[in-house]
Amino acid sequence: MSNTLGKLFTITSFGESHGGCIGVIVDGCPAGLSLSPADIQKDVDLRRAGFSPASTTREEKDKVEILSGIFNGRTTGAPICMLIKNESIDDTAYDKIKNLLRPGHADFTAHVKYGGFNDRRGGGMFSGRITATFVMAGAVAKKLLSTIGVETLAHTVAIGDIVAKPVPYEQIRQKALKDPLFCADAAASKKMLAAVAAVKKQGDSLGGIIEGVAFNMPVGLGESLFDTLDGDLAKALLAIPAVKGVEFGAGFTAARKKGSENNDPFALKNGKIVTVTNNAGGILGGISNGMPLVVRVAIKPTSSIALEQSTVDTKKMKETTIKVEGRHDACIVPRAVPVISAMMAVVLCDFAMRAGLIPRVLK
Amino acid sequence: MSNTLGKLFTITSFGESHGGCIGVIVDGCPAGLSLSPADIQKDVDLRRAGFSPASTTREEKDKVEILSGIFNGRTTGAPICMLIKNESIDDTAYDKIKNLLRPGHADFTAHVKYGGFNDRRGGGMFSGRITATFVMAGAVAKKLLSTIGVETLAHTVAIGDIVAKPVPYEQIRQKALKDPLFCADAAASKKMLAAVAAVKKQGDSLGGIIEGVAFNMPVGLGESLFDTLDGDLAKALLAIPAVKGVEFGAGFTAARKKGSENNDPFALKNGKIVTVTNNAGGILGGISNGMPLVVRVAIKPTSSIALEQSTVDTKKMKETTIKVEGRHDACIVPRAVPVISAMMAVVLCDFAMRAGLIPRVLK
Amino acid sequence: MSNTLGKLFTITSFGESHGGCIGVIVDGCPAGLSLSPADIQKDVDLRRAGFSPASTTREEKDKVEILSGIFNGRTTGAPICMLIKNESIDDTAYDKIKNLLRPGHADFTAHVKYGGFNDRRGGGMFSGRITATFVMAGAVAKKLLSTIGVETLAHTVAIGDIVAKPVPYEQIRQKALKDPLFCADAAASKKMLAAVAAVKKQGDSLGGIIEGVAFNMPVGLGESLFDTLDGDLAKALLAIPAVKGVEFGAGFTAARKKGSENNDPFALKNGKIVTVTNNAGGILGGISNGMPLVVRVAIKPTSSIALEQSTVDTKKMKETTIKVEGRHDACIVPRAVPVISAMMAVVLCDFAMRAGLIPRVLK
Amino acid sequence: MSNTLGKLFTITSFGESHGGCIGVIVDGCPAGLSLSPADIQKDVDLRRAGFSPASTTREEKDKVEILSGIFNGRTTGAPICMLIKNESIDDTAYDKIKNLLRPGHADFTAHVKYGGFNDRRGGGMFSGRITATFVMAGAVAKKLLSTIGVETLAHTVAIGDIVAKPVPYEQIRQKALKDPLFCADAAASKKMLAAVAAVKKQGDSLGGIIEGVAFNMPVGLGESLFDTLDGDLAKALLAIPAVKGVEFGAGFTAARKKGSENNDPFALKNGKIVTVTNNAGGILGGISNGMPLVVRVAIKPTSSIALEQSTVDTKKMKETTIKVEGRHDACIVPRAVPVISAMMAVVLCDFAMRAGLIPRVLK
Repeated sequence: MSNTLGKLFTITSFGESHGGCIGVIVDGCPAGLSLSPADIQKDVDLRRAGFSPASTTREEKDKVEILSGIFNGRTTGAPICMLIKNESIDDTAYDKIKNLLRPGHADFTAHVKYGGFNDRRGGGMFSGRITATFVMAGAVAKKLLSTIGVETLAHTVAIGDIVAKPVPYEQIRQKALKDPLFCADAAASKKMLAAVAAVKKQGDSLGGIIEGVAFNMPVGLGESLFDTLDGDLAKALLAIPAVKGVEFGAGFTAARKKGSENNDPFALKNGKIVTVTNNAGGILGGISNGMPLVVRVAIKPTSSIALEQSTVDTKKMKETTIKVEGRHDACIVPRAVPVISAMMAVVLCDFAMRAGLIPRVLK
Repeated sequence: MSNTLGKLFTITSFGESHGGCIGVIVDGCPAGLSLSPADIQKDVDLRRAGFSPASTTREEKDKVEILSGIFNGRTTGAPICMLIKNESIDDTAYDKIKNLLRPGHADFTAHVKYGGFNDRRGGGMFSGRITATFVMAGAVAKKLLSTIGVETLAHTVAIGDIVAKPVPYEQIRQKALKDPLFCADAAASKKMLAAVAAVKKQGDSLGGIIEGVAFNMPVGLGESLFDTLDGDLAKALLAIPAVKGVEFGAGFTAARKKGSENNDPFALKNGKIVTVTNNAGGILGGISNGMPLVVRVAIKPTSSIALEQSTVDTKKMKETTIKVEGRHDACIVPRAVPVISAMMAVVLCDFAMRAGLIPRVLK
Repeated sequence: MSNTLGKLFTITSFGESHGGCIGVIVDGCPAGLSLSPADIQKDVDLRRAGFSPASTTREEKDKVEILSGIFNGRTTGAPICMLIKNESIDDTAYDKIKNLLRPGHADFTAHVKYGGFNDRRGGGMFSGRITATFVMAGAVAKKLLSTIGVETLAHTVAIGDIVAKPVPYEQIRQKALKDPLFCADAAASKKMLAAVAAVKKQGDSLGGIIEGVAFNMPVGLGESLFDTLDGDLAKALLAIPAVKGVEFGAGFTAARKKGSENNDPFALKNGKIVTVTNNAGGILGGISNGMPLVVRVAIKPTSSIALEQSTVDTKKMKETTIKVEGRHDACIVPRAVPVISAMMAVVLCDFAMRAGLIPRVLK
Repeated sequence: MSNTLGKLFTITSFGESHGGCIGVIVDGCPAGLSLSPADIQKDVDLRRAGFSPASTTREEKDKVEILSGIFNGRTTGAPICMLIKNESIDDTAYDKIKNLLRPGHADFTAHVKYGGFNDRRGGGMFSGRITATFVMAGAVAKKLLSTIGVETLAHTVAIGDIVAKPVPYEQIRQKALKDPLFCADAAASKKMLAAVAAVKKQGDSLGGIIEGVAFNMPVGLGESLFDTLDGDLAKALLAIPAVKGVEFGAGFTAARKKGSENNDPFALKNGKIVTVTNNAGGILGGISNGMPLVVRVAIKPTSSIALEQSTVDTKKMKETTIKVEGRHDACIVPRAVPVISAMMAVVLCDFAMRAGLIPRVLK
C-alpha cells in the first residue's frame, strides 16, 4: 500500500467504503491560509450522489470534519487531517456475493494481494468513494493555487458515443458548472442524460471522457526527466478508479498528424511568448509552457451492473454467475468531474511549491 | 530537476545530447545477477540510429561502459553506473538557431525554467538521446524480470494514418522484432515505410502509436491507492519525449462501451482464475491481475522538421521563422519501441521487488 | 512540514497538544495481522502521565481508536488510521504567555517558520504529546517484528548525574519494565527518584540517557550508503522532542579507544558467526550484524520549568522574563522510554520489509 | 542499496574502492552557478591521503572530472555527474584475506546481505574512499550555501584521550584550517600527532571527535516532525564509515544538566532575537534558530590494524586470526574533517532549497 502522493505538498488517504470513515491528511500546506470546513464541503458536495440524475440514490451527507492543522481559522503549517464519517451503509447486498469476484472491480487482485484479508464490502479502499478524500485535498490545493491565480476545471466531453462540441476555454466554466453532467454543450448533455437513462433501464452502464483544464499557468512547472508535469498528473489521475487512459493536448490525435500540423508555432502576445495553437496541451519537455494545461481521461463504464455476468466463486473455486445489486451509478462520469479537477490541483500545487511559487507562509 | 525514478529498484539518468556522455545509475539491483556490457549493448543497439530506414543518419556507435557495481561478472548489490560517450557531435546546425525556439521542443520551457543557462545544443538533457539511458537501465531490469519469467515487449501499431492489424499476443515477438519498424503486420509496415519516406521528402514528420505488452505477469504488482501499476507506468512512459498519451487495455475505447461489454468476465483455466477478455489490460484497481499487461502510448510526430515554422527569437524578443536543420528522424516511432519496452521493465522490476518476488540475492 | 517517516512501512503523524486529537496513519502494514485497540492501548498506557512519580499530573486517558485498516480483527493491507482525542485541556496557562518565547522550546523557530500562524498552545504539534502517536505506530511495528522474533526494548541508564550500573542484556526486560523509571538498576532508580523530587521542588528539571536494545536481530537490515540502519534510527529518534544525541554501541567512548580495543573480534558460536564483544552496537557498515542492536540517546532536561528565565516578547519585541506554569514533568526520561522502543520498532520493521523478511500477507 | 540522499538537492554516490572509479551525481542544483573542476578539486584535496601525517601513504591523485550538468562554466539545472578514477590500486594485500572477516569492517554484513557477491577488495563500496564523493557533492553545496551567506566548517576536537581546548567559533576557521589535524588548539594538535605516531608504531589506531559548525544560519531550516534538521544531519553523518555517535549543542552533556542550566535564554541583539547561550546547538524543535549550528560526531578508531585479531574464515567456517596489511590511516579523524563539513553542507543546502531560500536560477 502506498497511500501518499506528492513531494512538498502531500496527501495521504485512508478509510474504506463501508468502514467508519474516509479521510485524508494534507501535509506541507503553507501556514496562514484561511481554511474552514465549508471551503472543503463546497467541493465535496459537487461529487455527492444525487447531484446528478446519472448517479446512485445512496444518500450520503458526506459531512467534512477538520481534525488538525487549523488554528484561529488559518492553516498552521501542521498536517491537516480531514474526514467524512460513513453513514447509510447497507452490507446486505455485499454479503451475498462476498466470495464472488465482481468483473471490472479490484476484488480479484485485492483478494490475491491481501490474502483474502481485504475489506471487500463495497470495494473497501478500492471503492470510488475514496475519491471524496481526493476532493477534500483538492479543495485545499485549489485555495493555495488561487493565491497565484491558477485555476483547475474539469468538464464532461463524452459519454458513450455522444461527444460534446468543443467550447472555447473561457466558456467552459460558466457552461459546464451548471450542467447536471458538467457538460459545456447543453444539447449534447441532453442526449447524454437520455443515453444514461436508457442503459440504467437495461441494468447496464456507460463510460465517457472528461477534460481537465488549468488556466493562468505559470511557465516552468514540472521537473524533468522523471517528475514531469504530465507524468505526475497521469499518475495522480490514474489513482482514480475507472480511469483507463490519459492524454495531453492533441494526445492520441497527435499520433496521426504531421509535425508541421502538430507543432505549436511560437508568437509574441502583449510582450509574452505564447504558442499560436495548443496541441502540446500546455506542456513541453514535461514542463508547463504557460498555455492552458489540457488533459483528457478515459472513464470506463461503471463496473457494477445489474446484468448477469460470468465469474468465479473464490471459496468453492468454481465458475458461476453474478448480478451486482445495490445502489450504483449507471454512469460515473459526472461524479468523477470534480475529482479530476481536484487531483489536477493537488499535483499543480505540489509543483508550484517545488518551483518556489507559493511561499511557505501566506500573509 | 528530478532525475531519479523508482522506489526499491531506481534509475538516475544524467548527461546531455551534445555533452561528453549520457549515463544512468541503477540502484537497488539484487546481488548475483550475471551482467556484462554486451547484455546492455544488445538493447541499446535496437534503439540506435540507422537501424531503421525511418531514422536519422547520425552515426552513433553508442558503446556501453559499466563503471561500477559489477565484480567477477556479477552484480554486487552496489549501484551500477553505465555510460555512453557522445561522438559524432556537430554543433554548427544548433549555433545558428541558438536564440530561436524550436516549435514542439522544450527549448522555451527550459529557457525560462533554467534562466537561459540550460545546454540547448541538441536539446541538451531534453533530447530523445537521453532515452538510451532508459534502455540501459531497462536491460538490467529485463534480466531481473526474466528470473521470474516476466517479459516486456513493444511493437508499432500505428504510424500516421496507417494502423496495423491486431496480432495475437503470442505472435508479436516473432513478427515485430524482425520488422524494420517493429510492426507485427508486415503489410502495414510496408505502407508505413512509404508514408515515412514521403513525409521525409517534404521535410515533415509523422507520429504513431506503440503498444507495450508484458507477458507472464504475476497477480499483485501495484501499490494502490497512489503507486498504482498503471499510474507508475504512465509516469515512466511520459518521461519519454514525444509521448503525449497513455492508455491501458481498451483505454479510450472503453469510454464508448457499456459495462456489459467492457467488464472482463472471470473464468477458471487450468485451476487458475483468469479473465475471458482483457479490456482491463491486465490491471484492476491499480494491481496486475495476471493477464498480459497492455499499454499503448501516443507518439507525436518528430518536432524537428525542415519546413519553415513561426517562432520567436528570445534574444531580440521578436517574431521570426525557423528551419530546423541537422539529422533528424522523420518518424521517431521505431526508435521509441525499445524504449517503451525498457521503461515497462524498469517499472515492473521495481514493483516485483516491492512485492518481494525478486530476492535481494540471486543464486 | 514533513510528517511521514519510512519507505515501505510508513507512519504519518498529525494533531496538536491542545487541538481536538492526535493521530497517526500506519501505511504498508502487511495484511492478516491480528490487531485490536487493546494491542495499541497497552503501549500507550506505558507512556501516560501519572504512571511514573516523575511525571505531570495532567490526567490523560489517552484512549486509542482505530478508524481504518482493520476488518474482522485483522489488518487488511489498507492504511491504519489511529487516534486519541485530547481531553483535560487547560489553555489558561498558555494564554498568559502566548507572546513569550519559552526557552528550550520550539516556540521561536515555529513562530518564525510559520509566520506566527502555528498553534502555540502547549507547543502545538511540537509538544511531547505527539510522541503518543509514535507509540501507537510502534505497537503495530512491534507486533509485526514479533512474527520474526525481533524485540525492541528501552530502559533508563542515567538521570542527571546518577548512572545505572550495567545489566546483562537478558536481565533488562524483567528488571526495567517493573521499575517506575524503567531503570534496571533498582538502587540507582531510587536515587534517581529522589533527584527528580528534589529538582521538582526547586521548580527545575532533569535530563538523562535512555538505552534502546533490539534482540534477535537478523543479519542484513540497513541499506548503505545512505539509508543505513544507524542513520535511519538516529533520524527517527531525533524526531522525539528532547533528544539531543544518539550513539551506537561504544558510541562516543569508541572515540577514546584504540582499534585493538574497539574492534569486535569474530568467532563461531553454534555454527553461527558472532562477535565476541559488541562495541559496534550490532551495526557494521550501516547494516545489522545479528548482535543485539544497542543505541543510547541523550534526553535534555524538560524545557518547561517554573523558575524565572530571560526571554523576549515577540509582540512588543522587548526583553522580559517568563515562568512556565502548567503541569510539566520534572523529568521526561521515563515517559520517553516507551517512545524510544516504539521508534526503534518502526524503523526496524521498515528495514525488515525492505529486506523481504516480513511477507506482505501474514497467515 | 539506497545510494541517494536528499529531497530537492540530492546526491547519488557510486563506485568502489578498487573498481574503476568513484563518483556522484548532484541533482537539483539550481541553474546558473559558476562551477569548475577546480572548485571541487580544492575540497577533495583536503581529504587526500598524505595531507596529514596521520594518514596512509596510498598515493591518490584523486583528479575530479565533471561529466555533465555544466555548460559554459555554469550549472544548467541538469544533473551534475562527477567522478574520480581510481589509481594506484594494489589488490595483493586483499587477496590473501578475501575469506577472512576484518573486525570492525562491513565484510561480514556485506557478505551475508549480498550473498558473497559484494566486491570486498578494499571494502568495495563500504570503503572510506567513497567519502570522497561526499566531498565532491559538498563542494557544490558549499558554493550554493555561500550565495546566502551560510558556511560549514569542521575541526578536530579530540583524538584518543587528548581533548582540544574550546576555541571561540570565530577563531576556528583560521586556526583549524592550517593545522595538519584540523585542530584549532595547536598545543593539543602536537600531542595528538605524537599519540597517533605512537599507535602507528604499535600497529594500532586511534579514534576521535570532530565538531561541525555552520555559521550565519537562517531561522527556519528543518521540516518537523520527521525531516528535522538534526535528524537529517545525523542520518547523513552516519553514512560516513566510522561515525558511531552524533550529538547537537550540549548533546550528551545536556543529559546531566538541570533545565535552568541547559535552556538557552532568549535576548535581543541588534533588533534580532538570539539565545544567550547555545546549548541547543542552533536547533529547536528540529528547526534552525539562527545561532551557529553545532554538531559533534564520534569517530571510532580505524578498523584496519596490523595487530593480530581473532576472526572467522567464511569459506572454511573456522575460527582463525587476521592481520590487516596494506596502507591504512592510523587515525582517520583528520581525513574525515572535510567530509563532515561537506555532508553538513549537502543537508543544509537541501533544507535551504525546501525553505525557498535558494532560488532555482542564480543570476
